[in-house]
Amino acid sequence: MRQSSFNNMGCPIAGALEHFGDWWSLLIMRDALDGFTRFDEFQENLGIAPNILTRRLKSLTDAGLLERRQYSERPARYEYLLTESGRDLGPVIVALYLWGIKHTDLDHHSVVLVDQDSGAEIEPVYVDRRSGRPLREIRAVFAAGRAATDQMRRRHGPETKAALRDRALRSGAAAL
Amino acid sequence: MRQSSFNNMGCPIAGALEHFGDWWSLLIMRDALDGFTRFDEFQENLGIAPNILTRRLKSLTDAGLLERRQYSERPARYEYLLTESGRDLGPVIVALYLWGIKHTDLDHHSVVLVDQDSGAEIEPVYVDRRSGRPLREIRAVFAAGRAATDQMRRRHGPETKAALRDRALRSGAAAL
Repeated sequence: MRQSSFNNMGCPIAGALEHFGDWWSLLIMRDALDGFTRFDEFQENLGIAPNILTRRLKSLTDAGLLERRQYSERPARYEYLLTESGRDLGPVIVALYLWGIKHTDLDHHSVVLVDQDSGAEIEPVYVDRRSGRPLREIRAVFAAGRAATDQMRRRHGPETKAALRDRALRSGAAAL
Repeated sequence: MRQSSFNNMGCPIAGALEHFGDWWSLLIMRDALDGFTRFDEFQENLGIAPNILTRRLKSLTDAGLLERRQYSERPARYEYLLTESGRDLGPVIVALYLWGIKHTDLDHHSVVLVDQDSGAEIEPVYVDRRSGRPLREIRAVFAAGRAATDQMRRRHGPETKAALRDRALRSGAAAL
């Protein structure tokens, strides 16, 4: 293995994953985004062992996704509140939710995303902010930006892209 | 721990995570969505040990996210192509990318999402398909659907939501 950490891949996706630790952490963030803040609630919702939960909460706090705050002096009790970067995980949870209701064997109507004010169901779809076009209608590809690492430049360089596109055409599979 | 699997939580997000196995699997899917299909390419991009990569590719294939196909007879060589459910992971990767360029210490311009046809940069934003309103302007919450499990019904019931909302108001933190 060339690296023990995702951090030096130069990739924002790997960098993001680096922050979460494991799936439990993402489920804790799902709970936090749903408004839960307390140890007992996370434990009840997740059915997670207390020592694992303690470790995960500490690592999420260290990573700046949650903020620990005392809400009772006697007995001393703490709650875990979302930071801005924690709140920005919302779209990741939404994207996982959309994949989950489509591709797991859970009933499509088990959990729905609604507008809290009107109660209307929400159907999230990614669009390009400027053109308003849905992402699935755009041939969207990642490209090396001007601050790309060498690895990312190789990965996303025009030669690599062209070769992959040719291969996709030959094999009948569409690229992203 | 009450359950050894995320599958019986009745939650589409947990169900989705169940499918991926671990972070390596998501990074392999990132590569597949970028158009890479071959063992050597995944290994080169990820710097992953061959035995781990073999195991991950097998589990992604078993989970129906990738399809294994022979592309050379002599020597026998296989490529891994996206299935429909694999392709539907695109928004998860996009959401992780957006979080990563905002909240990791990678340069914002390391990797950019572009329209392959025009070269224009794309700024993905989640909107509600029907109203066109950006999700971040809607007070979006998950709610128990009509096919919710008991656990999800408790979690997302009106009493729980009301209690969490009150607490968020008292503590000055906004709910999702």
